[in-house]
Amino acid sequence: MELLKERILHDGVIKDDDILKVDSFLNHQMDIPLLNEIGREFKTRFADVPVNKILTIEASGIGIAAIAAQYFDNAPVIFAKKTQSRNLDGALYTAPVHSFTKGVTYNVQVSQKFLGPDDTVLIIDDFLARGQALIGLIDIVQQSGASLAGCGIVIEKMYQGGGTLLRSRGVRIESLARIASLEHGTVTFL
Amino acid sequence: MELLKERILHDGVIKDDDILKVDSFLNHQMDIPLLNEIGREFKTRFADVPVNKILTIEASGIGIAAIAAQYFDNAPVIFAKKTQSRNLDGALYTAPVHSFTKGVTYNVQVSQKFLGPDDTVLIIDDFLARGQALIGLIDIVQQSGASLAGCGIVIEKMYQGGGTLLRSRGVRIESLARIASLEHGTVTFL
Repeated sequence: MELLKERILHDGVIKDDDILKVDSFLNHQMDIPLLNEIGREFKTRFADVPVNKILTIEASGIGIAAIAAQYFDNAPVIFAKKTQSRNLDGALYTAPVHSFTKGVTYNVQVSQKFLGPDDTVLIIDDFLARGQALIGLIDIVQQSGASLAGCGIVIEKMYQGGGTLLRSRGVRIESLARIASLEHGTVTFL
Repeated sequence: MELLKERILHDGVIKDDDILKVDSFLNHQMDIPLLNEIGREFKTRFADVPVNKILTIEASGIGIAAIAAQYFDNAPVIFAKKTQSRNLDGALYTAPVHSFTKGVTYNVQVSQKFLGPDDTVLIIDDFLARGQALIGLIDIVQQSGASLAGCGIVIEKMYQGGGTLLRSRGVRIESLARIASLEHGTVTFL
């Protein structure tokens, strides 16, 4: 997706040859027209699948998924929660997710009311690096008996291996910007 | 907002005469057409103010704010973060926010790059109860020197006093559903 790549080159900031900061348009401040273009592109890539639910994880995936849902016949968006909440009770699907960025393991939770065998689920998230969040979300989809349409990712850091691992397990992943390297302070797309 | 009130009566679940669970359409699973109606209503209520930035707080406010922004000329949405992140550095505005729901105090953070004296900010959130989150977000807007247009709230629990407190300080608050009581398992709107 050229518009996204141009935006990453223009406004992304590289730290420590490893972290790509996109907080000015994607995961702290959100550029709404860009999110609409991202949602439209996800629909183009997954036009062949009858998606009826979108699953993401708090917090950075939520805005992207909410806007994208408008291109999938307004499919409901479920966001997995990372912490216990008095607002979440009843039967839950849970899966452990380790965040290397924050250095903690969350027990990610989705209410069983909202996913079941009749659903075809598209997972959406901002980044794919080592794949921990996706592995947890896919686990939850499998627990529910729903069909997994695939994963729509805004930015994939190819060199961190999560995408390779998941594709080897047969998971369909569509990443709109695929980064081969951030070395020497330069973004190199695949 | 009648559509919202009807939805609360139909799908909301009351717990302990105090908690209103709206996880089936607002803060776990999100109903995207309803969020669009909510965004449209916020625009109607704040049509007189030149809003150019929307501020919310992770996680439940993000989807609501992202959809609503489409009715405010695609104003950028900034979501305040509740935890430290390697992705957030540089100068920050911070304010303490106590969550009675989760029993913890967060140090809420917004990058100083994204708010300044030229901005007119609309704060959006899902619930207003004791007002802790809004007090923190308003503090951040004031630190930045931006103008505060007001606060757009989906559901206000009037009996918890946050709205009364903030209105007495001159803050403009527009709540789309105002709940006077949840006693005896019944939602009573104001």
